[in-house]
Amino acid sequence: MIRVQGDRVTDASTTQAVANIGVVGLAVMGSNLARNLASREGNKVAILNRSRSKTDELLAAHPEAEFVGTFSYEEFAASLAKPRTAIIMVKAGGPTDAVIDELVKVFEPGDIIVDGGNAYFPDTIRREKAVRETGINFVGAGISGGEEGALTGPSIMPGGSDESWITLGPILKSIAAVAEGEPCVTHVGHDGAGHFVKMVHNGIEYADMQLIAEAYDLIRRGTGKTPAEIAEVFAEWNKGELESYLIEITAEVLRQVDAETGKPLVDVILDQAGAKGTGAWTVQTALSLGVPVSGIAEATFARSLSSHPEQRAAARSFPGPDEEFTVADADAFIEDVRQALFASKIIAYSQGFDEIRAGAAEYNWTIDNGAVSRIWRGGCIIRAQFLNRIADAYAEQPELPLLASAPYFADALARGQAAWRRVVIAATQAGIPSPAFSSSLAYYDGIRAERLPAALVQGQRDFFGAHTYKRIDKEGTFHTQWSGDRTEIEAEDTH
Amino acid sequence: MIRVQGDRVTDASTTQAVANIGVVGLAVMGSNLARNLASREGNKVAILNRSRSKTDELLAAHPEAEFVGTFSYEEFAASLAKPRTAIIMVKAGGPTDAVIDELVKVFEPGDIIVDGGNAYFPDTIRREKAVRETGINFVGAGISGGEEGALTGPSIMPGGSDESWITLGPILKSIAAVAEGEPCVTHVGHDGAGHFVKMVHNGIEYADMQLIAEAYDLIRRGTGKTPAEIAEVFAEWNKGELESYLIEITAEVLRQVDAETGKPLVDVILDQAGAKGTGAWTVQTALSLGVPVSGIAEATFARSLSSHPEQRAAARSFPGPDEEFTVADADAFIEDVRQALFASKIIAYSQGFDEIRAGAAEYNWTIDNGAVSRIWRGGCIIRAQFLNRIADAYAEQPELPLLASAPYFADALARGQAAWRRVVIAATQAGIPSPAFSSSLAYYDGIRAERLPAALVQGQRDFFGAHTYKRIDKEGTFHTQWSGDRTEIEAEDTH
Repeated sequence: MIRVQGDRVTDASTTQAVANIGVVGLAVMGSNLARNLASREGNKVAILNRSRSKTDELLAAHPEAEFVGTFSYEEFAASLAKPRTAIIMVKAGGPTDAVIDELVKVFEPGDIIVDGGNAYFPDTIRREKAVRETGINFVGAGISGGEEGALTGPSIMPGGSDESWITLGPILKSIAAVAEGEPCVTHVGHDGAGHFVKMVHNGIEYADMQLIAEAYDLIRRGTGKTPAEIAEVFAEWNKGELESYLIEITAEVLRQVDAETGKPLVDVILDQAGAKGTGAWTVQTALSLGVPVSGIAEATFARSLSSHPEQRAAARSFPGPDEEFTVADADAFIEDVRQALFASKIIAYSQGFDEIRAGAAEYNWTIDNGAVSRIWRGGCIIRAQFLNRIADAYAEQPELPLLASAPYFADALARGQAAWRRVVIAATQAGIPSPAFSSSLAYYDGIRAERLPAALVQGQRDFFGAHTYKRIDKEGTFHTQWSGDRTEIEAEDTH
Repeated sequence: MIRVQGDRVTDASTTQAVANIGVVGLAVMGSNLARNLASREGNKVAILNRSRSKTDELLAAHPEAEFVGTFSYEEFAASLAKPRTAIIMVKAGGPTDAVIDELVKVFEPGDIIVDGGNAYFPDTIRREKAVRETGINFVGAGISGGEEGALTGPSIMPGGSDESWITLGPILKSIAAVAEGEPCVTHVGHDGAGHFVKMVHNGIEYADMQLIAEAYDLIRRGTGKTPAEIAEVFAEWNKGELESYLIEITAEVLRQVDAETGKPLVDVILDQAGAKGTGAWTVQTALSLGVPVSGIAEATFARSLSSHPEQRAAARSFPGPDEEFTVADADAFIEDVRQALFASKIIAYSQGFDEIRAGAAEYNWTIDNGAVSRIWRGGCIIRAQFLNRIADAYAEQPELPLLASAPYFADALARGQAAWRRVVIAATQAGIPSPAFSSSLAYYDGIRAERLPAALVQGQRDFFGAHTYKRIDKEGTFHTQWSGDRTEIEAEDTH
């Protein structure tokens, strides 16, 4: 390998295949992942970037990593032992497709291309299918944990073929976070399964964050406590069944004082939440699958509602309730909110796992929900004690139709429902928006209902569109001749 | 034109161009629309179907229509005066594309192809673009009102070019429903605008139906009234501000007695609501546009929740509240429910029109929201007095950022909010699922909030993902160095 600084010459023909893994794309996520890989026993990491300068910088900044710097796809391929394995860490969409095209030219059948970016899973399905025709393995791998996780140990959700997992498994296990002795990576399922599960992870994250935000808002407006005082509440909660990374960092954020104004930071941050689209993907996919993920949807909508200042200005004069909101017993109210948060969180996760189950059925993936919950215990944003309970539930009953109905969760819901109702009632009375709390409770009351007014909806649909209905007392599909003599006839099922 | 029954021969070369409009696809919707067209002064209607038998049947069954029966695309084209105008009434998707391909072969520049089916608007955008290159006009037209509406007068929502509207406008006006002297059709906007607006119409319909279903359920479980008694409540409501087709038919459905069992029909209908996907499209599109249509989403999810019997069975043992639900004053409760229904309905329509506004901005359509509300006053499922108020609101302020903030609606919300809160509280206390009522109220409280906990969400996002935030007190984008010394720095906006 010839490398001359400045007027560089590279000669792939003399490059030795010394690396067992390569990383293409050296922005923060990519270089952190490359450093993570290099730091683990047994890995030798080839690196490649579109612009040479990033590669040079990384080589210079981290000599300890002993990277194999390469400056062309040919050289990159030549530096990798077979089966060649490369992780792409570039922007989703066009840039990812462009790198795949280049790698396919220089890789051979049996080699492995991993997309570690935030691809939308249908794109991963498409790419896997296209790349597979060349004999090369394509793996879409969701990587969660942000920049820090990439460096120190993320949660990794790879899809792709069984063949690819033989080579890739040990490498990914070497860099993943470790939770209770287990690396936070599993072969989720074929083709797009990994990116699908990563998408649902993010959707659950949206719900979790919105529920925490509603809990904070209720406590603040109900008890008059300061953000710093509420930080202590969250720190306390983090010792119990709510223990999780998101609860932990909420305490940190609420504790933070703005240096400039001396005010709590949360009071100087503009209250318009941004989003990068994965929450919306999760809900859009759930709608196609017919899975009610109302908690994730309300969380996604709460962000978009907050980000329309002109509409909020137009609605600023809408009146709220006449009475001031104060709670008589602050500690009791806070405990109610804690229980409501836990119950709502159970619903959000139950809905998320419901979507994974439906996705697996739709796309013919074999996904072990228990394994998914275990790899989320470390490295990722929604890591929590709680996930052990989900793993237990699926260990006991792998085909559980509804996660919330597993004994541990059903008990928690039963114990919490009275407090949950008190909180939703307080919020409603006080005019404090709690869309995720109230939506989760409505889901709980809906799914447990003996009888739903969906029967009336079916009657209406049959009236105006002859959409037919089924009966509770016999098989078949029926239609009432509403515009005729109103007798009932058997009909073809028009859904 | 030579037509021989049985061993049929057709000769397009001798066909005379006597028809001003043609219909392709003679299933129920298509034949009803063809009959409607034929019944109006000045129209001469050519008809074509893939299988000859349907055409023969329609010709035989309706000699009064004086249809021009045709049996090939060539003959169909030859029978139409120029510019040729044809309405396709076949299944959405592949069948529609197939018919378009055939028509393009026999039509000429300046002719007009109308897709009157339930196309997904991105398909309409794609088709319009492709057909436009041939010089032929392509119009996606949403047609609402079901089979009966097609025959007697639907609400029609055409997109497409201005040129096509010159010819098509008078024809569609001749067959549309009439409300307060105006035909229920307007040129909604270019290319896919018509199908987009039809999609949102259906989404609003989902929300409206779910709200009515919740109102019925609450009254029944709160007051113990029978479906027949509740039918009278709806009939009474239909005389006031709730007057609408859906309220009217709800009374009819609730009145209906099952001949076989003697029970109310609504009690023998299986409580699993079906859906044909337009509600899901509306929500999916809103998510892409960043518009919170929570009422439509909850309505869509309520249907899917109802249709998972295995999950409902697993949750059947979830406990509800300890206390029995009874209301002290049935009449007062019913009046509260009426007000809650009206307030929630305002939110649902406001969200729907918000989506139309955002869609118009995204796709560069000029859509007159007032005109849209006027053409929904007749012929379609959501026809209602109420739509006059929406038309008034947009007449007064065409660029209204939030429909609910128009004086009439803001007043109604202010008047209704106390009752609305009482109803959501009663439902929560009683364990009766009211996802659409409570979600609409949460939206009301969210959009009017002085300050939202979205600020905490931004803080969390900055903590774990360096997503940055904005401040209330100065321009710029900021990041707190959470894993460092926790000072704040100016940062690039990473949303």
